Amino acid sequence: MTFAFRIAATDGDARTGEIATPHGVVRTPAFMPVGTQGAMKGVHWRDVKASGADIVLGNTYHLMLRPGAERIAALGGLHKFINWPHPILTDSGGFQVMSLSELRKIDHNGVTFRSHLDGAMVALTPERAIEIQNLLGSDIAMQLDECIRLPQERAEIERAMRLSLAWAERSKRAFETAAPGRALFGIVQGGDDRELRAASARALVDIGFAGYSIGGLAVGEPQHVMLAMIEAVTPLLPADRPRYLMGVGTPDDILEAVARGVDMFDCVLPTRNGRHGLAFSRFGPINLRNARHAADPRPLDPESRCPAARDYARAYLHHLIKANEMLGAMLLSEVNLFYYQDLMAGIRAAIAAGNFAAFRTTTKEGWARGDMAAM
Amino acid sequence: MTFAFRIAATDGDARTGEIATPHGVVRTPAFMPVGTQGAMKGVHWRDVKASGADIVLGNTYHLMLRPGAERIAALGGLHKFINWPHPILTDSGGFQVMSLSELRKIDHNGVTFRSHLDGAMVALTPERAIEIQNLLGSDIAMQLDECIRLPQERAEIERAMRLSLAWAERSKRAFETAAPGRALFGIVQGGDDRELRAASARALVDIGFAGYSIGGLAVGEPQHVMLAMIEAVTPLLPADRPRYLMGVGTPDDILEAVARGVDMFDCVLPTRNGRHGLAFSRFGPINLRNARHAADPRPLDPESRCPAARDYARAYLHHLIKANEMLGAMLLSEVNLFYYQDLMAGIRAAIAAGNFAAFRTTTKEGWARGDMAAM
Repeated sequence: MTFAFRIAATDGDARTGEIATPHGVVRTPAFMPVGTQGAMKGVHWRDVKASGADIVLGNTYHLMLRPGAERIAALGGLHKFINWPHPILTDSGGFQVMSLSELRKIDHNGVTFRSHLDGAMVALTPERAIEIQNLLGSDIAMQLDECIRLPQERAEIERAMRLSLAWAERSKRAFETAAPGRALFGIVQGGDDRELRAASARALVDIGFAGYSIGGLAVGEPQHVMLAMIEAVTPLLPADRPRYLMGVGTPDDILEAVARGVDMFDCVLPTRNGRHGLAFSRFGPINLRNARHAADPRPLDPESRCPAARDYARAYLHHLIKANEMLGAMLLSEVNLFYYQDLMAGIRAAIAAGNFAAFRTTTKEGWARGDMAAM
Repeated sequence: MTFAFRIAATDGDARTGEIATPHGVVRTPAFMPVGTQGAMKGVHWRDVKASGADIVLGNTYHLMLRPGAERIAALGGLHKFINWPHPILTDSGGFQVMSLSELRKIDHNGVTFRSHLDGAMVALTPERAIEIQNLLGSDIAMQLDECIRLPQERAEIERAMRLSLAWAERSKRAFETAAPGRALFGIVQGGDDRELRAASARALVDIGFAGYSIGGLAVGEPQHVMLAMIEAVTPLLPADRPRYLMGVGTPDDILEAVARGVDMFDCVLPTRNGRHGLAFSRFGPINLRNARHAADPRPLDPESRCPAARDYARAYLHHLIKANEMLGAMLLSEVNLFYYQDLMAGIRAAIAAGNFAAFRTTTKEGWARGDMAAM
């Protein structure tokens, strides 16, 4: 199967459809759980699939350092290595180079950094980022870009945006020899500046990509800034290409971004919050660490599709989190992966039925209602 | 169903049969995975069951301190609390009081200790240990005993053994009001002294229990000492009652103890070693941390009944362990739980077929053969 995007229905700016990839179909709007190092933290792959995920994200930065892209290629590629025969998207490594490594040096050619694992100096160029993703064999690859922290001077934001555009062109050229059917996305940068965002989007569309990512957001800025940047960008992107908001986000972020025409998301929140004892639910976040759950025999949500949300008392989940038992992190990460996928399924169905606005309102009312009273 | 033990076949001193309990049947010889704090570390309960475990062990010491026996009783008992509707055996807390708590004071009445969790002073008497296990609702309960470290002066070993006998009598009286169908085991003590072990066994049989545990072993003594103590004890125990060797052990320990008439075992090794990257296998232990696995595309054991042993390359398991990913501990703990249960199933089938000696030889030859060569 070769990469293709088909929109089945729209509702306002929201869209629902399907992305075909060499490893299967991704229903959009899609949430991609993050398997950073080739594993979903605390969740078996079979449960990632059972949650309803069509596609997962792998981090180029982590995988290039350990076990190495050539090693994974020799083992048959990332799908086979991790035993996930379904679609995979890889990022370019750019974001993690900025956030995790020390002693990085950026010039027009690329970035050189010190590995956070063994201190070795590593070079990453647009061409090498593509080569790594080719070796991994991901269905959807990302251009190398430069992410900067916000707030930032406009000149600095523009410099990084222009550099990312130059890297976008080189990435596209490098990707020409990639295996057929796979897709490369360009990444819109421009910080919190509408004009720079628009300039970035227009230039990327001129280069031409199979899909467009919006990067450099969810880095600490307020939600209204993030949404304003999406609004500045999506009207400039071709309607027939998927739009991917990188690293986002909370359930509310996702609802709002979908309303503005975004099709794809990824975030570590479901598993990270699960490890910390926080469950997402129809009635907002539930902190299982809280003593109010200590004697509560009720499950998290008896109507959930997720076994972990139905089969265990809140008192048990509370106990596991307090006792620092791995099973607590495992069960709550599963609960959260299911919750995110159920949210996406609800979003898709609502757009298809033409009642996304009502779904958005009802869903937010549920979150605002809050969790059931303690027992 | 009420507690009952039925021997289906014997082969030399080895026996195979079934223990009926209120929550189901336990096939013997049985290995009980240890769910210390009400959870199996890194393994979902469904996978504990899938591994072939009929019964699991819960630790009274941990559960009495957190979340508390009365709390678990109010939530419907331990089976319901942890959502394991199958048989459960609980220890008496005695062993962990000795190994985990500080400032313990032992007299004829019981033991007082400082909780390792919050520093609170806690008293445990034979009567309270039974009360706690009644509140937990375990199918098989243990008398409170005093475990001592080896080596030890004979006089001290004898003192602790006599005290454990006095506690055995009190435990039996306290257990008279327990719910019908449940069983109480006495615990043979006596350190590494054959005479003291024999005296303990005879006195316990005079008191009369539904089953007999052999405690205070696998605490650092050589295997031949442990086996000699089993040999000193089993001929004195009634043939129609199950014999449980507490806290044991390695696959080899289990084979040797079964050959000497032991029916039940428990140990944390499968999950603890799994967390540390060590897999048990038909061809001996395999250290996945070792670099020789880094590029090996072969599964741990393509003939295993365990999905984790078949579905993932050794290179992937190596990567997960090196990267400290939870999934590595999860998969290898599962591999090891399956391996132990497969070993027990093989033991049971061999005894039933009257060829246990050959099975024991063949199994040891497999371990001695060692793992396949690196690839």
